[in-house]
Amino acid sequence: MHQYVIIVAGGSGSRMKSAVPKQFLEIGGVPVLMRTISRFYQYNNAINIILVLPESDIATWQNLCQKHSFRIPIQVTKGGTTRFESVKNGLALIDNDDAVVAVHDGVRPFVSLEVIANSFNQAATYGNAVVAVALKDSIRRVERDQSIALNRNDFKLVQTPQVFRVDIIKKAYSVTEGTDFTDDASVVEAAGITIKLVEGSYENIKITTPEDLFIAEALLRLQSEE
Amino acid sequence: MHQYVIIVAGGSGSRMKSAVPKQFLEIGGVPVLMRTISRFYQYNNAINIILVLPESDIATWQNLCQKHSFRIPIQVTKGGTTRFESVKNGLALIDNDDAVVAVHDGVRPFVSLEVIANSFNQAATYGNAVVAVALKDSIRRVERDQSIALNRNDFKLVQTPQVFRVDIIKKAYSVTEGTDFTDDASVVEAAGITIKLVEGSYENIKITTPEDLFIAEALLRLQSEE
Repeated sequence: MHQYVIIVAGGSGSRMKSAVPKQFLEIGGVPVLMRTISRFYQYNNAINIILVLPESDIATWQNLCQKHSFRIPIQVTKGGTTRFESVKNGLALIDNDDAVVAVHDGVRPFVSLEVIANSFNQAATYGNAVVAVALKDSIRRVERDQSIALNRNDFKLVQTPQVFRVDIIKKAYSVTEGTDFTDDASVVEAAGITIKLVEGSYENIKITTPEDLFIAEALLRLQSEE
Repeated sequence: MHQYVIIVAGGSGSRMKSAVPKQFLEIGGVPVLMRTISRFYQYNNAINIILVLPESDIATWQNLCQKHSFRIPIQVTKGGTTRFESVKNGLALIDNDDAVVAVHDGVRPFVSLEVIANSFNQAATYGNAVVAVALKDSIRRVERDQSIALNRNDFKLVQTPQVFRVDIIKKAYSVTEGTDFTDDASVVEAAGITIKLVEGSYENIKITTPEDLFIAEALLRLQSEE
């Protein structure tokens, strides 16, 4: 089945305390977003890559591509004011319903080829596959001023990629945005689909805070030693 | 109020794929456990430090202390077969009920002095203070083959230190161990006490897997630059 990936890179630099949007920050001399895109291209060089960027960042991205001689073929489209709108804009570029599409955070450059392959394979079989990991820490539910201990084995933390048959995710995204849409899995689930979780990896971090950049440099060294 | 800290270092090297228990692995040339202990000593050099170690690791620890000329005064006691038993063994060494005790993972060496100070201060006021952070990722509840999207703002991931008035935690630990005791907060909560959450930090990682050691080296560099 033909494969697409929508890479969502909508974040600003606010949490990063940086004027540069975090997806453009460099690790090991290469912008985070280029590393992320390269992973999917390395997995399948026939994959259709759709990059969703805030309109104001598109010129910056094009300059970076020139500077880094980045030549992986991608389609760029502009993001919306929410993640939901951004993914919807990406989906609008896919006219092949008999295909599978991954939605992936632009700031998760350490996703392994194994995780990508497994999530595409499972989605082809089950209609969807959402990458998640077990909790390492204890968890509590917070209610006003109180909190209650829970069993961490009852929960999973969700990462990306989140992979779906195109017809399924397009139908799910045809609704009005809900306030409980925190990721693609929640949108598809709201359309009555059972979500299939597949095993992710602790290395597949989302780069959102300044210390994450240091961690990213460390993971880069780790992976180059492997 | 007088302060104690029980440092629990019961882990084996199994998840680390290492023959050396993870608390003895070095980051920046210094065993993780020594770094953890040093943080509390740095916060308050009059604090009573109780280290709970598996009996089989005590000789190794003593050799490491010689090798690294580690001279921070601590009391060492042997751990039990569960974390509950280990903490209980540590508590047995405290004969001052009008004091505050932190329980802390031996493999969380990056706890900041601010987090330690704040949790001790809050515990002195409220009777307890448990360090926790907001979730960065989406979360799902897993039920057999299914899973359900939840609102991540309803949850917190729990770290250590978990700080308690000595009389409160001793009473809570006087019961038979329950299967739902995942940390000290859950034990104290089972005794009818409302848990007070205080803000932790994403840098306060628990070193449990091989990639965590790389991340730890990176965090060490980050903190030495600050």
